[in-house]
Amino acid sequence: MRIQVLLLTACFLQTGMMSVSQTIQQKVNEFRKVNEAKIIDEYIEFVSIPNVTRDTANILRNASYIKMMMEQRGIKAELLGGTTANVNPVVFGEVKVPGAKYTLAFYAHYDGQPVNPAKWTGGLEPFKPVFIDKPIEQGGKILTATETVSPEWRLAGRGSADDKAGVMTILNAYDALVKTGAAFKHNIKFFFEGEEELGSTHLDEIFKKNKDKLKTDLWIIVDGPRHVSGKKMISFGVRGDVNMNLTVYGPKRPLHSGNYGNWAPNPALSLVQLLAGMKDEKGNILVEGYYDDVVPLSIKEKEALTKIPNIEATLKKELGIAAPEGSGRSFLELLHLPTLNINGIRSADVGELAANIIPTKAEATLDLRLVLGNEVDKQINKVIKHIEKNGFHVLDHEPTEEERLKYGKLIKITRGIGYPAQRTSFDLPIAQSLVKAVQTTVDYPVILLPSMGGSLPLYLFEKTLNAKVITVPVVNYDNNQHAENENVQLKFLWEGIETIAAIMLMTH
Amino acid sequence: MRIQVLLLTACFLQTGMMSVSQTIQQKVNEFRKVNEAKIIDEYIEFVSIPNVTRDTANILRNASYIKMMMEQRGIKAELLGGTTANVNPVVFGEVKVPGAKYTLAFYAHYDGQPVNPAKWTGGLEPFKPVFIDKPIEQGGKILTATETVSPEWRLAGRGSADDKAGVMTILNAYDALVKTGAAFKHNIKFFFEGEEELGSTHLDEIFKKNKDKLKTDLWIIVDGPRHVSGKKMISFGVRGDVNMNLTVYGPKRPLHSGNYGNWAPNPALSLVQLLAGMKDEKGNILVEGYYDDVVPLSIKEKEALTKIPNIEATLKKELGIAAPEGSGRSFLELLHLPTLNINGIRSADVGELAANIIPTKAEATLDLRLVLGNEVDKQINKVIKHIEKNGFHVLDHEPTEEERLKYGKLIKITRGIGYPAQRTSFDLPIAQSLVKAVQTTVDYPVILLPSMGGSLPLYLFEKTLNAKVITVPVVNYDNNQHAENENVQLKFLWEGIETIAAIMLMTH
Repeated sequence: MRIQVLLLTACFLQTGMMSVSQTIQQKVNEFRKVNEAKIIDEYIEFVSIPNVTRDTANILRNASYIKMMMEQRGIKAELLGGTTANVNPVVFGEVKVPGAKYTLAFYAHYDGQPVNPAKWTGGLEPFKPVFIDKPIEQGGKILTATETVSPEWRLAGRGSADDKAGVMTILNAYDALVKTGAAFKHNIKFFFEGEEELGSTHLDEIFKKNKDKLKTDLWIIVDGPRHVSGKKMISFGVRGDVNMNLTVYGPKRPLHSGNYGNWAPNPALSLVQLLAGMKDEKGNILVEGYYDDVVPLSIKEKEALTKIPNIEATLKKELGIAAPEGSGRSFLELLHLPTLNINGIRSADVGELAANIIPTKAEATLDLRLVLGNEVDKQINKVIKHIEKNGFHVLDHEPTEEERLKYGKLIKITRGIGYPAQRTSFDLPIAQSLVKAVQTTVDYPVILLPSMGGSLPLYLFEKTLNAKVITVPVVNYDNNQHAENENVQLKFLWEGIETIAAIMLMTH
Repeated sequence: MRIQVLLLTACFLQTGMMSVSQTIQQKVNEFRKVNEAKIIDEYIEFVSIPNVTRDTANILRNASYIKMMMEQRGIKAELLGGTTANVNPVVFGEVKVPGAKYTLAFYAHYDGQPVNPAKWTGGLEPFKPVFIDKPIEQGGKILTATETVSPEWRLAGRGSADDKAGVMTILNAYDALVKTGAAFKHNIKFFFEGEEELGSTHLDEIFKKNKDKLKTDLWIIVDGPRHVSGKKMISFGVRGDVNMNLTVYGPKRPLHSGNYGNWAPNPALSLVQLLAGMKDEKGNILVEGYYDDVVPLSIKEKEALTKIPNIEATLKKELGIAAPEGSGRSFLELLHLPTLNINGIRSADVGELAANIIPTKAEATLDLRLVLGNEVDKQINKVIKHIEKNGFHVLDHEPTEEERLKYGKLIKITRGIGYPAQRTSFDLPIAQSLVKAVQTTVDYPVILLPSMGGSLPLYLFEKTLNAKVITVPVVNYDNNQHAENENVQLKFLWEGIETIAAIMLMTH
């Protein structure tokens, strides 16, 4: 509390700096400075409410807290559910503007990953937010109340970055605009999800149930970290994703490797031979037609990639990688191609636990990332065709006695439930407006990423709501997202408020 | 006890059948029939003494019991230890014959595999031996005392087959010969080991300490099962064996497969590509020079293989194998070649536990079976050379930061402690004598196997004791060796006594 008193004093000293000739950014910034202590106080209270997705009681406390914050800012808020029970509610609000050009919906999620308090170090606790001077892993310390709050400080706690920071920046950006008398040009919708960390299981259900209410031109997803370089970033898409489980069968019981070795086929060998043939040494996928449906990057998109700071040398050092895959293509180009990754492989045991046996089965789990143009089933079918070409008889069940005696190479394949990629074109007028707006807030070129490497079901916004979607991350790269000691650096919150405010008022 | 009374009555009725014109086999057989009840009684008592290798107190009770059985048969017995403490003793005895041609040593082991009584079914208990009419897995039942003992019956209990049956047949064969007045032609040594199931860890130590006492021309190993066809078998060798553990390294921490997929090399892929290239689809080993040092089978040995009943169709059905490896070579030919088997492979997790990651490492354990001509180190070095040719930098430790950044493909290799194969030539006069002796006991051609597929450190008999070694198994194939419900069929014990007696008196 001592910190806050100091801050409030500092803020009042600066109020005289506001003037009508200021840019929106300056106004928003001034407003934030004046109200910084109040904003921080509220944010600490918000992060103090436990938000693990399955903790329903606390999830509802979070939803109420958000609703209260919205109402305090003059936004009429309501909770949206799905058609089934046990859905964590979406906190929704809407501000209509007469003669609005666009309807912009701002998305963030308020639920967080599970926590293991035993793993949090340096005195940090998941739901007792405190300030630290730098990441605990880099020797950071909890700061005492006699110090002043610097934008370099970090607020540590579960959800501080992922993604209560989204809620925080959206609501305060709106508040700053209202309080500084900005002229809104677009309808603004607020949409705060409570199940993102469980895979947004009911999102489509909620979309379908509230289709009219959720009508928008553009969704702005405020989630995830900014670029490693620290620069502001706009992301226009995500890869899709689907898993496959493969099980190759050997003898019905584990066999003595001496008594049967050289004669009984080893399923681990069959599996490694199959997997080995799916990629070449440079990482190119050899499954026929795997790259066929890929919608190539446009000239603008390719150009954007060349402007993104190159972080490969840093990554190589950090991760201990001497020679990346990819035939010399850049890290960023590679993130815009479909993948075929071995998540894991297992047959019998290794090391101390290994026995001299021919195992009964060998299993692998594959992860297929999809890019624009790829369809989930089609991509999986290409892999299955490749497997069949390699002489395997494909099953969807454990082999019967008959099948074991009939087919030399037997494999069971199970498909996961996947979803396609999503990519919004750079060329859309609304996308260009958004880029321009964000660009006004910084004096370096904003990073434009055609697609992130990771996956989110953003295709649902297009498919169910028939809307465009663009991601504008606000938090620092080193936020320990999903892990212990999660934190957000304050200057990223402040810059995030500027960014979102600029988007809310974007010209067209 | 009721059974024994009945048996003794039956035996006395038959004593009048003995005559001087009988063959050794007939005499031995008659003696056994007369004394069957006593033999069975003693055997039940012997199997009742728990014999798990690490159970020292009971191991010593077993050793004392064997010593007593030997002394009762007029063999001076003693316990041999090694040079270190905590060695389960060998029970040793010797009978010298004036003008002996050869010194023959008969080996069996009295220790047994660990037991899990909960897994024994049908009312069986590991150390409460009882008779059953057939294997429990085939609906076998414990037999009541009112029935007469048939040679088809089985005595069930840990060690009943593996390998107290060896001790039992050796001692009773000798006893039968002595009691029926046979003229011994060879010195006979008795050697009963107590640590075979732990890998004969101290065997070489005992050999070295007792080198003079253990001087012999031929060791006869009475252990393991007869051929699946039920026919008598003589085995002239075993394969050697050694393990290798391979660990391929990827990024220093597990990476998000979306954020890094296509760029960060996956160690599971590197490992499967490495292993895939070690064998072709037909199971031929592609490691350069892998078959180079193999001493080929002689014409006689090859001929012997063709006379062994073909069990491949049975095995295929039993094990659910449609297409064996081996480029069309027979099961038996393949057991006489070196192997390169994947015992197990592991990287991250599969199925339900799998995450969408690029794993940090991938491991495999290989089992290399060696045949005559192969040397342990040389064979391992061929594999290492193959790995290096595939572009890997080989380490004997976890990679350092520097090594990770220097080498694109890093692998840690650890070598197990292995031993070479052992094979006794068919052509040796002493080997031919033994074959002739066993052949006199049956009217079908005895199966002669140049080498078993499995491994035992039989090379030690050659290396340390400078003696030849041949294996003569006596028990039924379906004895559940090392598993629950272990049993020996009585007719195999009776035939085993005939076999061993014939060898003890073999002509030269």
